[in-house]
Amino acid sequence: MAQHIKGIGASAGIAIAKAFVMETPVFDIPTNKIEDSAAEKERFQAAIVKSKGELEIIRENTLKELGADKAEIFSAHLLILEDPEIVSQVNAKIDEEKTNAAQALDEVSQMMVMIFESMDNEYMRERAADVRDVTKRTMAHLLGITFVTPAQINEEVIIIAEDLTPSDTAQLNRKYAKGFATNIGGRTSHSAIMSRSLEIPAVVGTKVVLAEVKHGDFLILDGAEGDVIVNPSSDQIAEYEEKRSAYIAQKEEWKKLKNEKTVTADGHHVELAANIGTPNDVKGVLENGAEAVGLYRTEFLYMDAETFPTEDEQFTAYKTVLESMGDKKVVIRTLDIGGDKELSYLDLPHEMNPFLGYRAIRLCLDQTDLFRTQLRALLRASAYGKLAVMFPMIATLEEFRAAKALLLEEKANLQAEGVTVSEDIEVGMMVEIPSTAVMAKQFAKEVDFFSVGTNDLIQYTMAADRMNEKVSYLYQPFNPAILSLLNNVITEAHKAGKWVGMCGEMAGEELALPILLGLGLDEFSMSASSVLRARSLMTRLNKAECEAVVEQVLDMDTAEDVVNFLSTTFDIKK
Amino acid sequence: MAQHIKGIGASAGIAIAKAFVMETPVFDIPTNKIEDSAAEKERFQAAIVKSKGELEIIRENTLKELGADKAEIFSAHLLILEDPEIVSQVNAKIDEEKTNAAQALDEVSQMMVMIFESMDNEYMRERAADVRDVTKRTMAHLLGITFVTPAQINEEVIIIAEDLTPSDTAQLNRKYAKGFATNIGGRTSHSAIMSRSLEIPAVVGTKVVLAEVKHGDFLILDGAEGDVIVNPSSDQIAEYEEKRSAYIAQKEEWKKLKNEKTVTADGHHVELAANIGTPNDVKGVLENGAEAVGLYRTEFLYMDAETFPTEDEQFTAYKTVLESMGDKKVVIRTLDIGGDKELSYLDLPHEMNPFLGYRAIRLCLDQTDLFRTQLRALLRASAYGKLAVMFPMIATLEEFRAAKALLLEEKANLQAEGVTVSEDIEVGMMVEIPSTAVMAKQFAKEVDFFSVGTNDLIQYTMAADRMNEKVSYLYQPFNPAILSLLNNVITEAHKAGKWVGMCGEMAGEELALPILLGLGLDEFSMSASSVLRARSLMTRLNKAECEAVVEQVLDMDTAEDVVNFLSTTFDIKK
Repeated sequence: MAQHIKGIGASAGIAIAKAFVMETPVFDIPTNKIEDSAAEKERFQAAIVKSKGELEIIRENTLKELGADKAEIFSAHLLILEDPEIVSQVNAKIDEEKTNAAQALDEVSQMMVMIFESMDNEYMRERAADVRDVTKRTMAHLLGITFVTPAQINEEVIIIAEDLTPSDTAQLNRKYAKGFATNIGGRTSHSAIMSRSLEIPAVVGTKVVLAEVKHGDFLILDGAEGDVIVNPSSDQIAEYEEKRSAYIAQKEEWKKLKNEKTVTADGHHVELAANIGTPNDVKGVLENGAEAVGLYRTEFLYMDAETFPTEDEQFTAYKTVLESMGDKKVVIRTLDIGGDKELSYLDLPHEMNPFLGYRAIRLCLDQTDLFRTQLRALLRASAYGKLAVMFPMIATLEEFRAAKALLLEEKANLQAEGVTVSEDIEVGMMVEIPSTAVMAKQFAKEVDFFSVGTNDLIQYTMAADRMNEKVSYLYQPFNPAILSLLNNVITEAHKAGKWVGMCGEMAGEELALPILLGLGLDEFSMSASSVLRARSLMTRLNKAECEAVVEQVLDMDTAEDVVNFLSTTFDIKK
Repeated sequence: MAQHIKGIGASAGIAIAKAFVMETPVFDIPTNKIEDSAAEKERFQAAIVKSKGELEIIRENTLKELGADKAEIFSAHLLILEDPEIVSQVNAKIDEEKTNAAQALDEVSQMMVMIFESMDNEYMRERAADVRDVTKRTMAHLLGITFVTPAQINEEVIIIAEDLTPSDTAQLNRKYAKGFATNIGGRTSHSAIMSRSLEIPAVVGTKVVLAEVKHGDFLILDGAEGDVIVNPSSDQIAEYEEKRSAYIAQKEEWKKLKNEKTVTADGHHVELAANIGTPNDVKGVLENGAEAVGLYRTEFLYMDAETFPTEDEQFTAYKTVLESMGDKKVVIRTLDIGGDKELSYLDLPHEMNPFLGYRAIRLCLDQTDLFRTQLRALLRASAYGKLAVMFPMIATLEEFRAAKALLLEEKANLQAEGVTVSEDIEVGMMVEIPSTAVMAKQFAKEVDFFSVGTNDLIQYTMAADRMNEKVSYLYQPFNPAILSLLNNVITEAHKAGKWVGMCGEMAGEELALPILLGLGLDEFSMSASSVLRARSLMTRLNKAECEAVVEQVLDMDTAEDVVNFLSTTFDIKK
């Protein structure tokens, strides 16, 4: 009998293939003391050399198949293996305590992982995951154990794992990895986000899939519904093959919309834009027919570096994006660092509540040298395309004025130096702090545009950290309070003749589109892979109808009431 | 020549007296190894016994002079000295490593302080301060050093210190301590809050007072202006003696208002209430003529205990307050624990952003046993006075409904058991999360009243942790966004026939009173010592005028614009 496992749908699509169970190897670390320190250190060195050789091959493959961005993970891993701190500490243990290499490595890496994890921010915790990854590889060589990685897969499978690490997902090859299912994770966990960006069907958070599925079991995975069917009947296989064909056909239909404008059934035009993190992402933006870049997150430029990127390095990145997008608008957000996004080379104070702390524009207005460098790079790049500059985490008008003044000052400086700067740069701000949504009327007079960052706006309006599982139920995009703030922002912006975009996850949510359309949102910026589906839905929506719906939902009591009403009215699943 | 030192005015009033400089003793910890472990352990034991003797005397004095509340600090200190963990660790170092007792104590206490401080919440950090306090005392005995404490003062002085610890402020005797000035701290630091509650003039955050003032220097301290004048001229002394007389006379005038209603110049009545933390505080409420208790913070009942207070213990506390207040209303807030307020006996998850985390009603609706116990205690106490129950940290209507349903369930249970429960309990909620301020219309239909918690509301609306010095400039009570939210809350509540109170610090700020009156706030709840001054100001204000002012400030651009306008219009200093 077929077995049915339920999880969270992370990435739509149907996969039908056999299971490739990726178990974490169990290492039995020996505790014996050694006699010949020199020989043991050599053995450790050999394991490092082998690991480096493997990582270099994986990096090359990744570079070819998945781009420079993903390959960088393995550059980071190689750096860890070259870290003199680790090697010398392991060697010291071998020398002084006669500890065997495996145990010495285990102790040193555990200490490093502990230090990274205690640092209490996502970026550093990812470094802990990197150390674990690298240690696992080297340990396997020391103990003569082989373990599987996605890079070794050479036939069509559905991957089953506890979770996929960043290094696992970087090695996913769409040709063979037809889908994956994990025990842990939610819709916004790393593996879920990667599955959508790679367009691989995925189900996460099943809790049991690793225990229930055996290597080689035949599986059906439905990434929209969150279903995994183990050893399905032939009827079920036929049923899902049909579903899969329909889904693929639908995707083909969507592709036809690639070069179309986004126009609703009653002839209203909205702009569908895409969010990007690096110049490499522009390829996907164009392939998916996005009409603009609605958010270029520049912090990746800083996070992937060993030190502050220079003005020229930044200029090159911004210019590349602007040139590739041609006459399409590119909204570049200035540095949004701090909070959970730290830089190894920027010493930030430890904060009790980093989400309510020193970050983004607060940091930039305090450390203006840093900010001016970015502004100059942006201004220089403005000559190569259609640039809009956006400031993050604005809470008060003074902050917006100060940031804009610095921009104009650097513009004058550059012009005095004879550098060409566009005269058509739009200057706007994120609306992600409740104070700005409430005071949209005052802000609208001074900005060229707003872009609503729903992730943070919801978090602050509900006073709930969405990364915190205990309160994530309060992350409610459809809460009438959120809709009412959006309504105020859009209404006041339009009164002042300004446009409003949205670059949070809500902008790509199917159930949100009708209501955002009804509220009058001008620009929807989402992950590139969601653009065509959203365009298809938009063509079927009627703006006047959506406006009538908005009137009704603004007065509702709860997010649940709104979601139920919208699902019924528009026949869209939450 | 007189020297002028500028600081932050923490508590109004003029003090004229000589300086009592309270320097932190410098300990030169010896590093010699000892030979006779048994003798060294005895020496350590003797130091503990002496310290305990002193602490017991201080505790008795504190109990007599300042009440049970403040005396408890010393019970906590005595417990630390009895902690077998500390004693046994010090003894082990003496035994095994032949460390001398002072060094052993130093090492053990530093480790404990480090552990407490790394716990990253205010409550535990206060425990670290306690360990430091106790260690200082015991160390002084081990090293034969004497140091001064406020308890030793027996003549009129102005205390000069780096900062005053909780144990210092607990020993302040108003008879002798005529004022104090510190190097560090701000208006909301512990010592500042204590100075207002003790009504001792104080200046904090001077940075230099400890370096500039010598023991015995003659001083003038102006706690309203934040001025310290060192070795003043006789003219200056005469000038400030006059000021002091005027201030004392004004306070006497205020006292005449003790039994008056609070009525504005144009005949509008508002209610001035007081915030309390324990039943002991009711005395101050009545002495200062507050018309109600606007906020009874029940978490102190939990934080001062070793385990959850029983239903009977809670009942007794609530009943005491209700009975003492007679027919005056008492608003009791249900448990607001979590965030920076932890309980040693309640294991809460470590959170990255505790202010956006699992706390208050979120915790109570999850751990309903805990909540039901408190609700039953409240319901039983309701028969003894005029009770209003208030739920903290409500973000959604579902939460309010769930909390109220539990209250009604326990009411029915008690009535079925034959227990008398008042039929007139008002059930309201804090407005401290932006979503509730935005959705006041929907909430107003279901609550009996709102009480605005401005501290948190401002913090979330501006997305700035006010405890974080790097962003505390964003804690702006007069930001037009905050005023606009208050306007929405009060307008919608009144439309639904409900009353609105405020129990955040803003309610007691002089500059805020005209605008809150103009917005239509019904109840102002503040520290008891601010009530009479506020009443005096209210009698001079004209509500109609204040309403006109509100119209103007709501459309202003920045908090600074609002503050400047209000200061000029009402001639009140910020």
